[in-house]
Amino acid sequence: MTKVVAFMSMSLDGYVADLEDGVDEVFDWYFAGDVDVPTFNPGFTFHVSEASAEHLRALMGEVGSMLTGRRTSDRADAWGGQHPFGVPAYVVTHQMPEGWPRSDSAVHFVTDGLESAVAQAKAAAGDKIVGMHGPDTIRQCLDAGLLDEIRIDLVPLLLGSGIRMFDRVENAPVTLGNPTVVEGVGVTHLSYPVLKE
Amino acid sequence: MTKVVAFMSMSLDGYVADLEDGVDEVFDWYFAGDVDVPTFNPGFTFHVSEASAEHLRALMGEVGSMLTGRRTSDRADAWGGQHPFGVPAYVVTHQMPEGWPRSDSAVHFVTDGLESAVAQAKAAAGDKIVGMHGPDTIRQCLDAGLLDEIRIDLVPLLLGSGIRMFDRVENAPVTLGNPTVVEGVGVTHLSYPVLKE
Repeated sequence: MTKVVAFMSMSLDGYVADLEDGVDEVFDWYFAGDVDVPTFNPGFTFHVSEASAEHLRALMGEVGSMLTGRRTSDRADAWGGQHPFGVPAYVVTHQMPEGWPRSDSAVHFVTDGLESAVAQAKAAAGDKIVGMHGPDTIRQCLDAGLLDEIRIDLVPLLLGSGIRMFDRVENAPVTLGNPTVVEGVGVTHLSYPVLKE
Repeated sequence: MTKVVAFMSMSLDGYVADLEDGVDEVFDWYFAGDVDVPTFNPGFTFHVSEASAEHLRALMGEVGSMLTGRRTSDRADAWGGQHPFGVPAYVVTHQMPEGWPRSDSAVHFVTDGLESAVAQAKAAAGDKIVGMHGPDTIRQCLDAGLLDEIRIDLVPLLLGSGIRMFDRVENAPVTLGNPTVVEGVGVTHLSYPVLKE
């Protein structure tokens, strides 16, 4: 079964971005080491610790498609039509953006709902995983019982304010399994299975 | 220098108790294993995984005194006059409770402010650490620059609502150091040094 896996960088006090949607603080670890991890986008290379490099390489090898919300996509300008992980990306949105769909793009806007987007992303991922970004879309998937794993890159920082990773989770409490743990520098990678009844 | 060290069990979404002040969910791990860890209170034994048992034994050996807020103390009925860690406890409060101070008790209510309470707890701890409980009191210590370490027992659970561990932190962002990590069962023990300028 194709797994749907959320991954987000989060401060210890639960924020994924500051109040201006800025992610510099929580993404700091992507550039805090001396091991280069190239992405599919030649202009975009991570510089991380050896432990995080292994973690990221494994992750990028695992991901068969990406699923995000419109906000995440807009912030990245639809990744110029190609997500940096080099896989098809599905963006849940209410309305097709101006100039889309584009036949030459690996970014697909889905306007007929989350379940459809998940189904399309799963079909594209094949035997790999669907990676998810964006707290709102992740929460909607969690609430709908469509999320299989939550991978938090936990950053040693108290941001004090901003956009929360977990806000208004329905059907709480949600029980997770014991995480696998990878200790990086400036980040602790925690991967939790979502336990389903 | 005597260190002031906060320790709290927290859900992955940042709660230390539910909306009714209940801690059963986040304290579950204290009773989720088969290794007994006795406390100073003969009626109160933890049952945890081997990794958590080692962690707890080391912690209890390290703590020279405890510092908490009034709410934590009230909820525990002032631990019957003896904190289960077997060390003097200092409780920050605005008003001396009815029936206190008691000459036969190792629990001390401090009515002249947080700094005084920290100073008294440090003097009592000697070359050991001051352990802290209670999110409000911990936050006040953090804001006042009096906190040296934050140890989070991170529980694989989304509580959805409740009392937050980190709420309205001043002087944010607060940068922490890389944590030491102990992987338990139903809990991940993360110890972060608070970096001071």
